[in-house]
Amino acid sequence: MKKSDVLKKAKKAREAALALSALSGDKKDRALRAMARAMRKSKKQIITANAKDVADAGKLVQQGKMNKPLLKRLILNDQKIEEMAQGVEAVARLENPVGKVLDAIEMDENLNLYRVTCPIGVIGSVFESRPDAVPQISSLCLKSGNAVILKGGSEARRSNQVLVKILSDAAASIPGVPQDAIQIIETREDVGEMLKLDEYIDLLVPRGSNEFIRHIQNNTKIPVLGHADGICHEYVDEKADLKMALRVCLDAKVQYPAVCNAMETLLVHEKIAPRFLPPMIEKFRAAGVEVRGCAKTRKIVKDVKPAKEEDWTTEYLDLIVSIRIVNNLQEAVDHINRFGSAHTDGIITASRSAAQKFMDGVDSACVFHNASTRFSDGYRFGLGAEIGISTNKTHARGPVGLDGLVIYKYLLYGNGQTVADYSGAKAKQFTHKPIRKSKTKIL
Amino acid sequence: MKKSDVLKKAKKAREAALALSALSGDKKDRALRAMARAMRKSKKQIITANAKDVADAGKLVQQGKMNKPLLKRLILNDQKIEEMAQGVEAVARLENPVGKVLDAIEMDENLNLYRVTCPIGVIGSVFESRPDAVPQISSLCLKSGNAVILKGGSEARRSNQVLVKILSDAAASIPGVPQDAIQIIETREDVGEMLKLDEYIDLLVPRGSNEFIRHIQNNTKIPVLGHADGICHEYVDEKADLKMALRVCLDAKVQYPAVCNAMETLLVHEKIAPRFLPPMIEKFRAAGVEVRGCAKTRKIVKDVKPAKEEDWTTEYLDLIVSIRIVNNLQEAVDHINRFGSAHTDGIITASRSAAQKFMDGVDSACVFHNASTRFSDGYRFGLGAEIGISTNKTHARGPVGLDGLVIYKYLLYGNGQTVADYSGAKAKQFTHKPIRKSKTKIL
Repeated sequence: MKKSDVLKKAKKAREAALALSALSGDKKDRALRAMARAMRKSKKQIITANAKDVADAGKLVQQGKMNKPLLKRLILNDQKIEEMAQGVEAVARLENPVGKVLDAIEMDENLNLYRVTCPIGVIGSVFESRPDAVPQISSLCLKSGNAVILKGGSEARRSNQVLVKILSDAAASIPGVPQDAIQIIETREDVGEMLKLDEYIDLLVPRGSNEFIRHIQNNTKIPVLGHADGICHEYVDEKADLKMALRVCLDAKVQYPAVCNAMETLLVHEKIAPRFLPPMIEKFRAAGVEVRGCAKTRKIVKDVKPAKEEDWTTEYLDLIVSIRIVNNLQEAVDHINRFGSAHTDGIITASRSAAQKFMDGVDSACVFHNASTRFSDGYRFGLGAEIGISTNKTHARGPVGLDGLVIYKYLLYGNGQTVADYSGAKAKQFTHKPIRKSKTKIL
Repeated sequence: MKKSDVLKKAKKAREAALALSALSGDKKDRALRAMARAMRKSKKQIITANAKDVADAGKLVQQGKMNKPLLKRLILNDQKIEEMAQGVEAVARLENPVGKVLDAIEMDENLNLYRVTCPIGVIGSVFESRPDAVPQISSLCLKSGNAVILKGGSEARRSNQVLVKILSDAAASIPGVPQDAIQIIETREDVGEMLKLDEYIDLLVPRGSNEFIRHIQNNTKIPVLGHADGICHEYVDEKADLKMALRVCLDAKVQYPAVCNAMETLLVHEKIAPRFLPPMIEKFRAAGVEVRGCAKTRKIVKDVKPAKEEDWTTEYLDLIVSIRIVNNLQEAVDHINRFGSAHTDGIITASRSAAQKFMDGVDSACVFHNASTRFSDGYRFGLGAEIGISTNKTHARGPVGLDGLVIYKYLLYGNGQTVADYSGAKAKQFTHKPIRKSKTKIL
């Protein structure tokens, strides 16, 4: 695609975003249901396009240029399409995140100020391979009134193209929904162009490997929502319930090790380490986990491999765990703030005050007491849907649902007031009274 | 200052931020009151340092290298110092923005999730000239539990240095408040270094000219809170109350033209223009405003200067207004979304439905009905204090108070739950019940 074509798409997306922002929740939900219906109706077309992608990918697997799990995630069949349609319908059932009154204040009589949620504008979504991300991200963006420009993995090129065509046509079949609400770009070069369009694109939501996310973060001025690493910790305090600690730490490591909220490093208070580590390491090994430990750990369990400095900053995403013994809670907190990725970290302790000290001190998006780090997830948190997990320090943090795809605007309703009335010697005074929530229907 | 010194300060600021984040509201308020007392006690020292800055600036004015208003804003005297102290005390009286429970949900029995406000971390504040920004920004950052690195104008170098020394010593006199909570850097080169430290600095809050802000925005990966331009509009609808429109538009232009929320362009519906524009332009001229108009405007009032295309994108910050006649409301909305700066825009109309169409359609931080754009301000909005006005589409928008200096973290309290319990054939179900606000005291 030519440079100018990406720019054209971005300009159209901005136009579409302005139209989407004024759309009622009902219209958006009708568009979403139309999208689900269209996917079911066009099953054959989707599967035909997907088969070509899969065939090409199959050759890559044979040539050793692609791994099998990636190929498997690429395949769309009847069941997968039905799941995608149901996912879009589930988004339709969520509460409309736009138009919520966050604050309402009477500045003076007949001068009422409302802070109201509204869409962000244009979202850029860059993701790897899996074509099921197309309906998922498109539906979340539409529900929140944002236009979206998608770029998927090149392996799924034909599948993604067909899906975007089906989804955007279906959405636009509802009067008022613009055709350009959901668009797609194709090549790596297109992404490079998109990253420059901070004038038109308001937020990037990338999904993929750490390296991929970091590349995006380092090459754009557009705000990026997401996280690169997920280096999560559990800290077993001196006052931990040992049985609970064994169960939770095993879950945090082995329940699904390939994901960002799995534990990578286990920190243990030195007082409890001699009792806790032998059974813990036995459990890890029984589950096929490779254990790497600090010098103190290796004094307690002799045949543990040594952990190097770089282990503390490595996201294994695999059945590997590093273990470090700390002198006290503060040392655990310091280790996490220094080496962690500010994603999710937990403490196991029976002491409420120790828990609170840990939760105040750890500067991470999610801090857990007596629970597995694996709970860090939008669905488990009850957000209904998740656009991603953010380790940013602004806008949205932790698992991000529809709320992370909206911002707010201030709406002020007056009857001809001027600032001159509130200035100088005879200045009128502001009342600044909160308006009761029950009265927050604006007009 | 050497490169490595800015880095050292940033590292110290991060340490300080971790300590500040766990500080109680009471301690922070005690530190703020100590800061106010210290400024009063050290008046002489402040005035002595300031006198040297003022003397140097006086020479620059004589040489024509600095304008007089800038010199005037530089001067600190007894009254100014008292005002600064009172400003810090006013911040102490505001509600603690940290530790507020935003959401609380029971994920399951004894598995309770809280979304709680917390500080962002390290704020970088770069501003021009005025030394009174030092106590103001420092107090807002401390109140919100953030460490701050300040860089003021070189003209105020000595004043700023003394103020930072007094404020940080006073704050650190309260046990638990770190010495490095408030730091200062000196040179333009230091700022260049600071802009690179996205690993340590979480948010930049620049204040100054459009050019200055744009320079910051274009040269850092750190999120920037603020706005470059303030190109604000009033649109006089066909159904406007003419007397109200005259009064509000005059206020929006002349009450204080040098600020970002003053009106720069006036849009007028063609049906009302023949009746509205002659008296409006007469009023503008009586107030010393230069009027520039589109071709249609100049047919109605003959001796108006022609407005050029570039007038629609110019922030005059002066007694100049550009006027454009539009065919309808949508054309006004389109003009604002195309040429405006998404800061503050208003409609004057007696029609509620026209107002709502305008407020839905205009993609600006603040959209007003029958009120002067000049109301767009943190104090007038009742935020208590203002760190700046943001035209960003993420994090914070419009006038930003203490709420814009905090983010949130998720705190999960369990009793040993694992994700394995909620997976597979015998999976436990999440309850996802909201926890009543009255029960949101966590521990």
